[in-house]
Amino acid sequence: MHVEGLSINLATIREQCGFARAVDICLTHGITAIAPWRDQIAAIGLKEAERIVKANGLKLTGLCRGGFFPAADAAGRQQAIDDNKRAVDEAATLGADCLVLVVGGLPGASRDIDTARQMVADGIAATLPHARAAGVPLAIEPLHPMYAGDRSCVNTLGQALDICEQLGDGVGVAIDVYHVWWDPDLANQVARAGRMNRILAHHICDWLVPTRDMLTDRGMMGDGVIDLKGIRRMIESAGFLGAQEVEIFSAENWWKRPPEEVIATCVERYQSCCQA
Amino acid sequence: MHVEGLSINLATIREQCGFARAVDICLTHGITAIAPWRDQIAAIGLKEAERIVKANGLKLTGLCRGGFFPAADAAGRQQAIDDNKRAVDEAATLGADCLVLVVGGLPGASRDIDTARQMVADGIAATLPHARAAGVPLAIEPLHPMYAGDRSCVNTLGQALDICEQLGDGVGVAIDVYHVWWDPDLANQVARAGRMNRILAHHICDWLVPTRDMLTDRGMMGDGVIDLKGIRRMIESAGFLGAQEVEIFSAENWWKRPPEEVIATCVERYQSCCQA
Repeated sequence: MHVEGLSINLATIREQCGFARAVDICLTHGITAIAPWRDQIAAIGLKEAERIVKANGLKLTGLCRGGFFPAADAAGRQQAIDDNKRAVDEAATLGADCLVLVVGGLPGASRDIDTARQMVADGIAATLPHARAAGVPLAIEPLHPMYAGDRSCVNTLGQALDICEQLGDGVGVAIDVYHVWWDPDLANQVARAGRMNRILAHHICDWLVPTRDMLTDRGMMGDGVIDLKGIRRMIESAGFLGAQEVEIFSAENWWKRPPEEVIATCVERYQSCCQA
Repeated sequence: MHVEGLSINLATIREQCGFARAVDICLTHGITAIAPWRDQIAAIGLKEAERIVKANGLKLTGLCRGGFFPAADAAGRQQAIDDNKRAVDEAATLGADCLVLVVGGLPGASRDIDTARQMVADGIAATLPHARAAGVPLAIEPLHPMYAGDRSCVNTLGQALDICEQLGDGVGVAIDVYHVWWDPDLANQVARAGRMNRILAHHICDWLVPTRDMLTDRGMMGDGVIDLKGIRRMIESAGFLGAQEVEIFSAENWWKRPPEEVIATCVERYQSCCQA
């Protein structure tokens, strides 16, 4: 029983299990595509993670994550670039489809978001030759505007695509419904991303009403207000037929449940709520 | 000692005092412009509120608030329109510069944000003849995208201006820095709003990092990451020279302090952090 078109971002069960057990649970549920985080890889070791990936023929829809380019001084910005190059190497070793970038917010006590945005474009530009040489596409993930201060000053798909246009090949976008569902320009920008051939990943979860925490209260697909089928239709029409990757941060609900239950629910909801 | 160009939205001290005492505190601090909420007016009675406003020569930079147009059925939508007309009448009685609209989010269990947005345009259109006749401009306040589900499906200044263009005279925008500061298209859209002559109000506060509550953790000007002077320059360049209206929802900080301290701090910070 193989579940076609579904990937599990391992943050979804990160509180319950490490890389090896998370992979086992996914395989048990017929899922052969995953997206791990660098700390999960580091905990088991890159070599062992690579062995598990290859032994099981796993597809990695992305490695999370690079980014966080803005810094108060040049040394900090160079550190970020160096770390992003290491992340590229890890993604290459694991054969990941892309390295997901959460680009970073305002550095230090800055109020200058335009400069932060320029630091992001500069940081990606500086990482890009290494990424191209390694054959690892960089996936800019626009984050919801509520993270503009501290996590990502790239807040719309349109803005991410502008950076892609500016920087050329080797960089695209990860479209996470949680971050972009509200955007009145979403349909246009998804179509534009398709014309530019820049869609590298499609992440899913749901937006709960009310949302009780800005970071760790994401919903399971079907429990919120996002039109998941509608957005999938946009993305498929734009030419991306890759997996939908479930990424749920849920401190008070899903992270407290048995991981087998969480993954079984992901499969159910993917089948009932998410397909175009 | 008159503080020129500063207005206090009375939500800023709503937990500490009602309309009459809030007005007294503002006057004591040299502030003669305010923006009350309808529940504050209702508590003291419209007639008495009108008397206080006129006796003190108060300027009202807005009445909060109309809106919440989307509803699951036609009866609900008509109720919203009727209530908005009553709000227009109250704004006219008090001589308010505008009626601020928080337009509403997704009705019921809907996932159809396009339809909700159409309900908003339709609701404003249905209210507009009454507002024009009363001489009360309607001010669409785009709300931060984190409120798209439950409070406002109009989430960018550009989107609000599109509605203004569609509906003609008598409707404009309230620009609240808290909701729009992150927008990569902000400078363009503020300039556009100026060319269209649609800026009706300018609200200020600050975005705290971290933000601990999505609704009631707004910061005092200067305590967060918003470039308040920069945005004021944009707005003045676009031709709006009206007051800056302080609106702070702060359950754990400013709502717990003596209201005199809060208003004194608003004056200080307005003078040090907010002028173009």
